[in-house]
Amino acid sequence: MKNNTFSFDLLAEQGSARAGIFYTPHGPINTPVFAPVGTQATVKAVTPAQLKETGASLILSNTYHLYLRPGADLVAEFGGLHEFMQWPGPMLTDSGGFQVFSLSGTRKVDENGVTFKSHIDGSYHRFTPESSIAVQEQLGADIIMAFDECAVPDDLSYNRKSMARTHMWVERCIKAKTRNDQALFGIVQGGIFPELREESARFIAALGLPGSAIGGLSVGETKAQMHAMLEVVDPLLPRNKPRYLMGVGSPEDLVNGVKRGIDIFDCVLPTRLARHQAAFTQTGRINLMNSRYSRDHHPIDEKCQCYTCQNFTRAYLRHLVVAKEMLASTLISIHNITFLVSLMAHIRQSIFDRTFDDFAEEFLQNYTASKKTGD
Amino acid sequence: MKNNTFSFDLLAEQGSARAGIFYTPHGPINTPVFAPVGTQATVKAVTPAQLKETGASLILSNTYHLYLRPGADLVAEFGGLHEFMQWPGPMLTDSGGFQVFSLSGTRKVDENGVTFKSHIDGSYHRFTPESSIAVQEQLGADIIMAFDECAVPDDLSYNRKSMARTHMWVERCIKAKTRNDQALFGIVQGGIFPELREESARFIAALGLPGSAIGGLSVGETKAQMHAMLEVVDPLLPRNKPRYLMGVGSPEDLVNGVKRGIDIFDCVLPTRLARHQAAFTQTGRINLMNSRYSRDHHPIDEKCQCYTCQNFTRAYLRHLVVAKEMLASTLISIHNITFLVSLMAHIRQSIFDRTFDDFAEEFLQNYTASKKTGD
Repeated sequence: MKNNTFSFDLLAEQGSARAGIFYTPHGPINTPVFAPVGTQATVKAVTPAQLKETGASLILSNTYHLYLRPGADLVAEFGGLHEFMQWPGPMLTDSGGFQVFSLSGTRKVDENGVTFKSHIDGSYHRFTPESSIAVQEQLGADIIMAFDECAVPDDLSYNRKSMARTHMWVERCIKAKTRNDQALFGIVQGGIFPELREESARFIAALGLPGSAIGGLSVGETKAQMHAMLEVVDPLLPRNKPRYLMGVGSPEDLVNGVKRGIDIFDCVLPTRLARHQAAFTQTGRINLMNSRYSRDHHPIDEKCQCYTCQNFTRAYLRHLVVAKEMLASTLISIHNITFLVSLMAHIRQSIFDRTFDDFAEEFLQNYTASKKTGD
Repeated sequence: MKNNTFSFDLLAEQGSARAGIFYTPHGPINTPVFAPVGTQATVKAVTPAQLKETGASLILSNTYHLYLRPGADLVAEFGGLHEFMQWPGPMLTDSGGFQVFSLSGTRKVDENGVTFKSHIDGSYHRFTPESSIAVQEQLGADIIMAFDECAVPDDLSYNRKSMARTHMWVERCIKAKTRNDQALFGIVQGGIFPELREESARFIAALGLPGSAIGGLSVGETKAQMHAMLEVVDPLLPRNKPRYLMGVGSPEDLVNGVKRGIDIFDCVLPTRLARHQAAFTQTGRINLMNSRYSRDHHPIDEKCQCYTCQNFTRAYLRHLVVAKEMLASTLISIHNITFLVSLMAHIRQSIFDRTFDDFAEEFLQNYTASKKTGD
């Protein structure tokens, strides 16, 4: 039997920023943490061995995608997602709800769930709180998510209704759950409305789940609105449980999130940017297609310890990009993931050292400055 | 100064099959050897670290492609091809001749060289024996090739003329060569005509170069014709120098080539097949798109020690293929390269053990049998 304890050790705090360890059946997660996304049971363009070398601990995969292809029953037959894709570390699956709302062409929400059309072959499917949990139990991730509705953020009356539904659904998810080696996280919703976010945070906090998530952000609202919502929920969520900001984000979002009490982040950004030739540096993103790098002897980032920066010049990477070689996506993905994972490691250390505020200020200053000059 | 000796130790023979070591400035090459192809300064979809894990020693890159993009002067500025693409082992560049004839839309051959149109941007360029050597000296591979003309194999009068030109050009290449840390190989031509192949082999053998190559095969002739040409040149080429069969081949071609005195092979096949979802097994190729593999718990090849076969099921690989994930190309490329490299290692050992004939017969029987059943 696997250990059913998902304990969270809060080791240090500076303001709202927190450093801790979240224990899972597939190993501990040092928080704050950035989780790369393996949408279809693969973090695009990198092998699990390369991913491990980036320092990544937790990775995310998408229930909607895996349910449609190859099917959760097949993944279960192959011993679950860890075994199927050969990721030995901690994993998280979302509930499928977000993709149903963002990818599926046609969908119909009712009190019991969502009927939707597959983006792959147009076939009809239905997710309910119960079926989402059943699928996530077949996939077997360490952290699973309550089925929720992600509403457009600025419609007050719809968000009120949708939040109530999300609250009803999380209670049904708790009842539906049968495995004790998976941690179920509830999701705070409420759009850009402080009163709804407050109500939702109080509701989710009261459930006594091993972790809380904040959904419905980074979906079109401004950065200031996102920060305001985080500041509303921060004091209301349990201090002794991890908080997960879903689908975020960029380097500056990670710093700003930690500052407002977030422990876990995930985003497709590092791998998606890589496929568009963009790489993170300490001073902002650069695009390696740019001819200015054609004879650049430097690595992407002088300070970076990743395989890419330890071995290859910007000129070589640009050559791969221009020649449309797949290796470009692989090498830039390795760098971008390493960049975010290392950023989180630096942030974590700075919280222990009580220098996080300085680190955050300096990072944001350098990073913003570069974005202004454009690339 | 680098060592300018390219010595070849012939360690064992069985019939015409040979096992040896060819020493280069970037390390020894155990022969017979299969060289993966890194057309544009990358073996497609794999990193140098992954490539090293396959057991590959020698790799090939294409002068035509690198001359056009990123340019040989740029590669030279970055310390040569080894440094630019971070391959620390032995490398070989072709002369550019073959691609000029196979890829360039428009070309005009004269006694001094070839004028051709770039397949990238339509610009005009010219290769001569002297410029091909100059470019290959800028690229800096360990083994470089004489500039030759690869003619259609079945036109006797054209092949006679073309062979004479190739012979004139190799002498100009020898004169043009200035670096002593690169081994220049001459190329035997002559199409499918035994009398021309014989004349060409005698001519190339008499030049005293550190190695010989056989060009103009695997370009449309039958397997029987290829084998017949190899049998013509085998007794005529120096026994104490390596022989390289250019652009070959498939598993069965490698076995049949070694049987006829070949030491070095190169081909894009393992990586090109991988991008079309096809993988080598002991009994033939399989295509991982096939639905029969959707719930197959086995690796591609039970006996294979590669990263892919040690970790992933056919079902997972099929999922990646169906989901159009880049990782499919990477993992199948790793397997296919390892398969050919391991095949050569087995062949080599069997020559030492004097069991090569049995090994070859059994391999060809199993491999052909599977192809008949189709896939």
